[in-house]
This record gives sequence, C-alpha cells and structure tokens, in this order.
Amino acid sequence: MKSNPASDHVYFNDGFKCSTISIQTNITEQNGSGSQGSKEFILTEDGKKVKPPLSTLECTRSWLQNCGRRTFNRKTLHKRLPILSWLPRYNSQDAVGDLVAGITVGLTVIPQALAYAGIAGLPVAYGLYASFVGCFVYIFLGSCKDVPMGPSAIVALLTYQAAQGSWQKSVLLCLLSGIVELLMGLFGLGFLIDFVSGPVSSGFTSAVSLIILTSQIQSVLGITAKGNTFVEIWTQVFHNIEHTRAGDTVLGVTCIVVLLLMRSLSSCKIGPAEQSECTPFQRAVNKILWVVGTARNAILVVVCCLMGYLLHSEEHGAPFRVVGDIPPGLPSLQMPPFSLNANETSNGVAQGFVEMVHSMGSGLVVIPLISLMENIAICKAFANGKPVDASQELIAIGTANIFNSFVQAFPGTGALSRGAVNNASGVRTPLSNIYSGGLVMIALLFLTPYFFFIPRPTLAAIIISAVVFMIEVKVVKPMWRSKKSDLVPGVGTFVACLVLPLEWGILIGVGLNVIFILYHAARPKLTTELLTTQAGVEYSMITPDRCLIFPSVDYVRNLVNKQSMRQNVPVVIDASHVYGADFTTATVIDSLISDFNQRGQLLFFYNLKPSICAIFEQVSAAQFVVYYQEQQLDELLKERNYVQKRPETA
Amino acid sequence: MKSNPASDHVYFNDGFKCSTISIQTNITEQNGSGSQGSKEFILTEDGKKVKPPLSTLECTRSWLQNCGRRTFNRKTLHKRLPILSWLPRYNSQDAVGDLVAGITVGLTVIPQALAYAGIAGLPVAYGLYASFVGCFVYIFLGSCKDVPMGPSAIVALLTYQAAQGSWQKSVLLCLLSGIVELLMGLFGLGFLIDFVSGPVSSGFTSAVSLIILTSQIQSVLGITAKGNTFVEIWTQVFHNIEHTRAGDTVLGVTCIVVLLLMRSLSSCKIGPAEQSECTPFQRAVNKILWVVGTARNAILVVVCCLMGYLLHSEEHGAPFRVVGDIPPGLPSLQMPPFSLNANETSNGVAQGFVEMVHSMGSGLVVIPLISLMENIAICKAFANGKPVDASQELIAIGTANIFNSFVQAFPGTGALSRGAVNNASGVRTPLSNIYSGGLVMIALLFLTPYFFFIPRPTLAAIIISAVVFMIEVKVVKPMWRSKKSDLVPGVGTFVACLVLPLEWGILIGVGLNVIFILYHAARPKLTTELLTTQAGVEYSMITPDRCLIFPSVDYVRNLVNKQSMRQNVPVVIDASHVYGADFTTATVIDSLISDFNQRGQLLFFYNLKPSICAIFEQVSAAQFVVYYQEQQLDELLKERNYVQKRPETA
Repeated sequence: MKSNPASDHVYFNDGFKCSTISIQTNITEQNGSGSQGSKEFILTEDGKKVKPPLSTLECTRSWLQNCGRRTFNRKTLHKRLPILSWLPRYNSQDAVGDLVAGITVGLTVIPQALAYAGIAGLPVAYGLYASFVGCFVYIFLGSCKDVPMGPSAIVALLTYQAAQGSWQKSVLLCLLSGIVELLMGLFGLGFLIDFVSGPVSSGFTSAVSLIILTSQIQSVLGITAKGNTFVEIWTQVFHNIEHTRAGDTVLGVTCIVVLLLMRSLSSCKIGPAEQSECTPFQRAVNKILWVVGTARNAILVVVCCLMGYLLHSEEHGAPFRVVGDIPPGLPSLQMPPFSLNANETSNGVAQGFVEMVHSMGSGLVVIPLISLMENIAICKAFANGKPVDASQELIAIGTANIFNSFVQAFPGTGALSRGAVNNASGVRTPLSNIYSGGLVMIALLFLTPYFFFIPRPTLAAIIISAVVFMIEVKVVKPMWRSKKSDLVPGVGTFVACLVLPLEWGILIGVGLNVIFILYHAARPKLTTELLTTQAGVEYSMITPDRCLIFPSVDYVRNLVNKQSMRQNVPVVIDASHVYGADFTTATVIDSLISDFNQRGQLLFFYNLKPSICAIFEQVSAAQFVVYYQEQQLDELLKERNYVQKRPETA
Repeated sequence: MKSNPASDHVYFNDGFKCSTISIQTNITEQNGSGSQGSKEFILTEDGKKVKPPLSTLECTRSWLQNCGRRTFNRKTLHKRLPILSWLPRYNSQDAVGDLVAGITVGLTVIPQALAYAGIAGLPVAYGLYASFVGCFVYIFLGSCKDVPMGPSAIVALLTYQAAQGSWQKSVLLCLLSGIVELLMGLFGLGFLIDFVSGPVSSGFTSAVSLIILTSQIQSVLGITAKGNTFVEIWTQVFHNIEHTRAGDTVLGVTCIVVLLLMRSLSSCKIGPAEQSECTPFQRAVNKILWVVGTARNAILVVVCCLMGYLLHSEEHGAPFRVVGDIPPGLPSLQMPPFSLNANETSNGVAQGFVEMVHSMGSGLVVIPLISLMENIAICKAFANGKPVDASQELIAIGTANIFNSFVQAFPGTGALSRGAVNNASGVRTPLSNIYSGGLVMIALLFLTPYFFFIPRPTLAAIIISAVVFMIEVKVVKPMWRSKKSDLVPGVGTFVACLVLPLEWGILIGVGLNVIFILYHAARPKLTTELLTTQAGVEYSMITPDRCLIFPSVDYVRNLVNKQSMRQNVPVVIDASHVYGADFTTATVIDSLISDFNQRGQLLFFYNLKPSICAIFEQVSAAQFVVYYQEQQLDELLKERNYVQKRPETA
C-alpha cells in the first residue's frame, strides 16, 4: 500500500458524500457559539429550548420539498454519474497515469481472470468474459479511482458455493446479484457495511483465503479433491495424495516460490533511499525491478505457457495439466439463461427460473454484501480521507454486473489485490479501467489459441501466492494489545467461516459484535459525587455516561435508588451525556420520581436536552424538574423549603 | 395498583442487589471529588491517568479472590435465601397483613386455577395441583413480597402451545422449565429481561390477552372451536356459531357482566374521600364493598356452583356444561413422566424422553423467559424503588416449578393479577403464600366433590373479565405523544404475536428494538464549533455525542474530514462524551490521523479517557496527541510552530 502525499493535483470528486444522511452544518464565525451539527444536540447557556416547533404537516411538506430538491439537482447528478465531475478536468498528467496503471492492471487481470474462473468452478474463458464490460461501465458510475472492476477470488468462491460450477447459474447469479446491488444502492443500503467491524472483516477474509488456498492445493498436486468445506477438502487431499502427479507438483511449487521471490522484487531498491539522490541508472533498475515485481503474474504465465508449448507432444500431452481449448473471440451478446434443459443439469432434470434461484439460496444476498465489502475496502484504503459513498459504489458494481451478465460473466467486484496494483501504478481516475478492459478484449480476440498451453499448476500458484498474504495474522497482535475483547468476534468469524458455510460465519461474527453493542447500551456507568451548592447545601450528583434506553433503565433506576438511600440528601442526575431516551425510559424515570417522592427525597435533573425533556414530560409531567445552570439549584431547594440534615431518616 | 407511602415499617430485604454486576461505590465526604462508580469513568482535572495498572496475573488473582469472597459470605447467603433477612424481624403486624392477604389471594387462586387449567388444555384439577407446593417453596427463596406463586394465564397458554394439552408433557415441561429457570438464575442471566422494552412487553401482553380471550369465547358460547392462532380460532367460532348452547351463553354473558360490575365495587367508596373522616358505618360498608369486589371470583363460583347443583337433574344434566368429576384428595407424589405409552399419545405411537422434549421445541426457553417477565413485572410494580433481583427470582420460580412437577403441576409463575390483589390486601412478606397454598390444599382435600357443579361458562367468564384489562390500549396515547418511534416495536409485537407463534412475535419485537439501538450506535451526532484559544488562535472543535464503536467510525471519519477540509484550521476532537471504543475505532482513528497528516492539518484529542487512550495508542502511537486542559492547546500549537492563516491551502 503506497500513498502519494506529495501530489499537488489530487483527483477530487464533488459527488463524495455520505449517502443516507445529509449533513447540514453551517459554520458561523461567532466565537464560542458555533452552530450545531444536528437539531437534536442543542444546549444553550441559559437552558432555553431553541428547537423550532414544527407541525406534522409542515414537517411532511418540507420533507417532500427536500426529497424533490435532492433528486433533481446538479449535485445529485454529479453524485450519481461521477464521470461528470472528473472528465471536464481531465488533463495530460491524468492520461499518462491512467494509461500506465491500466496496462499494469490489465497484465495482472488476465492471468488472475483465468485462475479465478477455476475457483468459481468454470472454464477459464469465463474469467476473461467477466473482465471487460464491467470495466467500461465502472468508468461512468464508479466514484473511486482505484477500483479495478472484474473477478475477485472471494466472490468467485461465493459464486462456486451458490452456483456449484454451472455456467448458466453463474451467469444468472451475476445478473441477479447485480440487480440486488443496484437496488441496495438506490435504496441507500450502503450503510449495512458499517456493521461489519474490522475484526470480523479480518476473520472472514483470512478464512476465505485459507479456503481458496485449500481449494488450489489439488491443482498444484494434480489430484482431484472435491468438497465444500475446509475440512472436507483437506480430508480428500490426504485421501488422494498417492495420486499426486510429479510434473504438476514440481511446476506448481516452483511457480509459488518464483512468484514469492518476484513479489519481493517490487519493494527492492538499489542505491540511496531517497529517490532524488539516485543516479539515472539506479532509478532505471529500480523501475525495472518494480515492473517485474508487479507484472510477475503475466511474466510467469508467458514463461510457463511457452514451456507448456515446448514440452507438449502429440502423443503424451504435456508433463502437467494444461488449460486446454478456449473458444476464440469475444463472447456472444445474449440474454442470461433463465432456465436449464435436462441435459444441462447434474441430475438430468430440467430446471425453471424459480428452481435456479432457489438453488442459489442466500448467495443472492451474500454476494452483493461481500462484493461491496471488498470494493469499499479498496476505496477506504486509498481514499486519503475523502469520504467513500458506499451506495454509489453499489450502484456502480450492480450496473457493471448486470451488463456483464449479457456476455456470460460470473459476478465480479473491485478486487483488492488489483486495487493495490492500480494505486501503486499511479492511477488518477476510473478511466484506467478502459485500458485494462481493452487488454482483456485483445487477449480474447488474438491470444486464446496460445492460452491452450498455460499449465493449470501455474494458475493455482498465482492464486495461492496472492491469497496467502490475505491471511491477516499480523492484525492479531495490535488487537490483543489494544482491545482484547475484539478478538472474540474476529477469531469467532474465522473459525465459523472455516467449519460452517461462509454466510453463517460472517453472520455469527456480526452477531457477536451486536452482542457487544447491546451490552454497551445495557450497562451504562454511573459516577457519584457528593457536592455542595453555592449556598452550602450538600447534594449528591449522579452522572450516567451514555444514553438511557430500555435495556439500561431498570439497572440505572436500581443503582440510583441504592445510592440515594444511603444518604438523605437531594439527588441531581446530570444528564449532560444522555443523548437519547425512549418510552421505556420515560416510564422508568416516572417510577424513579415516585420512588423519591415516597421517600420524601428531592430529585432534580441537570442539563437534560430539550428533546428528551419533551419525552419525559409526556409521562411524568408534575414532579419532573430540570435546571440548566448550577445556581438555579439553590433556588429550587429554597422553593421546596429544603433544610439540610433533617432529623428524620427515610 | 395501590401503594402505601405512609407505612413506617416497610418490608426490606438486604439481599436485593443487581445480580450480574456488583456495585462498588464508596462515597467519600470530600467536597467535589467523590469517588467514581466505575474504574472506566475516571477523569481527573489535571488529566493524569489514575487507573491503577494491573498485570494479567494480578487481575486473575483478584478476580478469583472476589469470586471466592462473593460465593461464601453472609450477604450472598441472605441474597440466595431471602427468608433469612425478613424472618428474624417478623412481627405481629406482618402476621396480620400476611394472613389477610394470603386468604384473599387463596380465594382468588382457586377459581383462577380451575380456569387456567382450561387454558392449558388440562382437566381442572391440574390447576389446583399447580397452586400449592410452589407457594411453600417461594417463601424460602422468593425476594419479593407481592409475588403469589401459581398458575398464570399467559404461561398456561404457552404451556398449551408447547404441550398440546397432554398432562404428561405439561408436567415434564414444568420440571424442565424449572430447571432452565434455575440454571438461568444461577448463571445470572436475569438481565436478559432488560432487553424486552416497555412497548414490546405491552404489545406481547395485549396480544396474549386477546388470544386467551378468544380461546374462552367457545366456552361461553358452549361450542367447540379448535385452533392455534387468533385467526384460526375466530374462523372456527364463526363456523360453529349455529351450535351455540343457549344455557351456556346466557350464564357466561351474565357472569362477565356481574364480574365487571363487582370489579368496580372494590374501588367504590361511600362517605368522605378521607378515610379518617368516615363514620364507623361508612368504613365498614367500604370494607365490605372492597372485600366483595376483591373476592368476586370466589363468590361467583360459589353462587354458580350452587345454581349448577340446584338446576342439575339426573336425566338431562345441567342446562350448561359443568366442570364434572374431579379426583378427590391431594395429588400423588411421583416422578414426572419421562416417556409416553402408545395409548397416551394422540397418534398412538409411544414417545421417549427425547421425542417429548423435541415436541416442546422453543417452549423450553420461551416459558422461562415469559415467566420471569411476568414475575418481574409484579416485583417492579410494587417495589417502591427497591432494586429487584431478577436472577434470585429465577432461582425461586425455577425451584418452585421443579418441586411442583412432582405433584403433577403445569408450569407457573407469579401471576400479575393475583400480585395486585396480594399488594392491595396489605401483604408484608412472602409468608402470605403459606395461607393461599394452605387454602388450595383444603380445597383439594374437602371441596372437590362440590366443584363438580361449577359451570364451565363461569370459569370462562372469570378468565375473560381478568384478561380484558390486560389489553393495554391506554399505553398507546402517552407513547404516541412522547416517542412515536416506540410504537413500531410495540404495534409490531402485537400484530406479530397475533398472526405468528408467540415466540416469533416477541422475537420480532426485540429484534425491532435492537435495530433502533444499533442505529443509535451507528449514527452519532457531531457538533462543530469554531473557537479561539486563549492566545487568539482559531481552531475547530468537533464533539461526538456518544461512543465511537465500529458501526459509526467510518461515518465519523467522513464527517470530520469533510468539516476539516472546509477551513484550514487545527481541529480538536472533544472526546468528553466518548465512553467506549474498539479495535475498529483505533484503526479508523489511525487513518484519520494520517488523513490529517497528508493535508498538513493539525489534529488533537481533548479529554479522551485514559482507557480509550490506551486502545488508540497501540495502533497509532506516534502522531496521536491528547490534552486535558484548555490552556495546553496553545502550548501544543506553539510546539508545532503553527501560525494562523497560512497562505497555502491544503
């Protein structure tokens, strides 16, 4: 992950904006009394309620007006068609950057596409079919310069799990998941990705990488090991280990070693550390090292392909398994298949649209979500602080997948590994996608005859040496040191993804995280202080540190009562940190007030936000007292004829 | 609901304490610097970290010591055997109060027990079997004076849904749900009840009441209408309406009207409002009115039973359906049935223990939770502010149900309607249960022959006139006025409980509530202010109003970046309201810091709790700057050579 802090002309997109909630903040230049970021959070010095009263009718009307304005203005157009923002400002520097990055990514995507088709259980040609139309679509709709639309290892695995290697189902899945993504984007559901925490995401990615690695072991060894889960595949591998083909194994292992060595080249440098101090020769060598390291997949495939061609004999074939025939030319433009004939299914029974969709099951929801997750991971990694519009990305990858499905592609997204290549190659706008897409089209038109000799172990080696770095072992240490409890969802997701279906694994991780959030909400911390008013009256100040919503209110009521019964002094609840409340809170606060009334103890609320006041007042109007300035407390005590240290004890 | 604020000797239980988290608050008398309620929430004026550093080993040892101390001290004994707290202080006033209340409840429980057995789909005798052993157990273990252990309408309905009217399954269910309750109590899972919010609880109770009411319509009309859901039963009722038996209908409707009239008697008063101003005659009349109103069920049953006896003829039977034979005497003491013979099941196939448990399904979890919910509702309603120990109540009702299952009882709990009677009759300690349990035993020993003539429509009328007041229509109005969004889970639960199985209904309600909590956690509100330091340097102060956990952090990062890019002034994040953070937060804060570094903008954190500092420092140590006093900001700016209004713009 490289970043370029020194760039003086950064690609900037007006359309970037959080998609679900519009931000209304007006900065005024007045000292110390700036305006508020939200209507809810208004606290004036004198305690006046400054929230403007709006009738329901007015609210509805202004909401409708806002909707109308939002839908049909120039800003929305720029947001929904990000190309309008950057194309007018496109310059020669951008063009060079995009060209270099596009070609580099193109050289990466061709071998990856061939390999990932294998993960999806499809003939290699489908990988290439999935790698060009989407790129062109993304140029218009994509909001993130670094995203290279195309097949990804994780989504390919999910495709295999949902479509079980049937190309018809994979293509239909591509259409349907594209539609789901588009709809999610239009309905602003991009925020769902926020509920996948860092640890869960790490656990999931690591588990998926391990599963993909496992699935490629058989290709390296030249054996067949079928199975859906991690354990099944490994059992099969050990069961069939005696059938290992020497040629495949030797080539595969060699390829892995070579790839790992070449990978380290891209970060190798000769000469002084500072680039400006290098001699032109050193600079050239460094550049070549970087290019060789970055284009390692393409170089390896070309070399191995040549090797396959030379070692191939008509009688015995090659000493290792090769990719074989690939239909030449571009895929035909046709509707995705909506039904299967009897001879197209595994069990020989024809399937209609409904049966096909039914057999995909949860994949229709999981693929869009995981696609978004991977895509957003790229955007965030290289956004340099600019906001990422998850909903617009959903629209972009959704539309790309819909178009893709008409050229027999399987589902794709922005692949993380190529995103890093794209960024490191100096990409400037999404236009770089045009070069990578173009390279794939050239490959399909002219190079398919040569792909025949690409050895399968080489493709497996490419996958293995890519995913092995996605197993995030190094994240465990900082997690352990900073917040140990976050290891629970992280490790939980990892283990669950390995032993259960992937969608269950990620659901379990998210569920564990939700439990932590709920526990947070349910157990606020209370601080108790014994203070004295300006007039010298002792009182007890109880400060809850977060909002009072239903899971916590009885706990708070119990604690407050318990504290208050220890000393018979007036109690003040400092609600400065209380930003939200609900009806259950209001009823429990009412009980709390009557508890105090029955004990004859005084209870006041300090600094309660007006919006929450309104909620409480509806349930317990009479004895509910709020004040906003410290000196008001003495007046309130005087009004109630309170005298300190009364003889009777409650 | 009556309460007695003037009582000078209130039943008080030392054992009351929140069960899951022990509270460690020491009030010191120092002015203005009271100790803290929790270690997490420590903010000293000078910003020193005051949390004592503890090694993992030390933590473990002190935790073990604490565990040991907690398990074996006198306080725990009093908490787990609440009778030890109140019995030594028992006096004559308590004895009178308990006697009156116990007999009143006993007169209520006998007709209710007969009726609720019908809801559970069992012969009436089982209702009585469920009403005495548990009472005696509760005396020792119960922590709440107002709880009358015994059958309840809601739990009876759940029993019917789980056991389908088989007495063997109902008794086994009683044992198993008792064990589940006991285990939940011992593991301190009483807090689970906190996640059922007021609106969900109201929606559930209302729906259940409507279903129970529906199920009793057939008894009033003298027809048969089988069905599990609300809609099914009503369809059956309309289908069979022509079979209506005149005798049953007339008696049932009359009984309902009479009961509703008698119910209003208990709140009727003659003479002056103030009791002390009444003449002895007026006082006596008021007392009689109250007794008649409270014991209305018993009175009606006796009258109708007499009527049944008089109208009964050997040839035609009674003009309405009667309860019929009840086996005389106490139930035999025997093990709950762990298997079913072929002739005991509906389909004629013998069932083993596993099949029986399997057929109960989710009832094994739902019954304990709902039992606890109803029981805690009583405790809270009459606790007068004293904390309620949900886990101890679980232990009490669990043990009571386990003992109950040996006398062929179906599951029970503290029934809300009798709890109100108990409290209004002046109950002082759980000892009142001894009188109601005793009355039930007397009824079983001597009165069963007379129960033969109790008309079924009378029992149905008792149920209907009890549950009709549990449909909480009047809670809608304050909810609408105080927090409209709370109507969503409330109405959602109500509708879902009516059309789906009950456990789904309550899960949907809780789920809706959880979504609200998650939304709260995911979308904090940010306040932006443009302030000036003491040295006159402008800076922007951004204040998030709640904790920063993973669903919200990217949103916050986007907003902070967006705000900060508008003006090139140093940014301070005021973390006073931030009480929690996780690993995801730490990584995103790290990205935020590098965003600012790349823009060359300064970023500081103000008032960040030391515990959260520790989390952040592990991920982004170098550029992470926190300060705790306003004047420190100027020094920090000077250190970084910051000059206001620099000419270059980022």
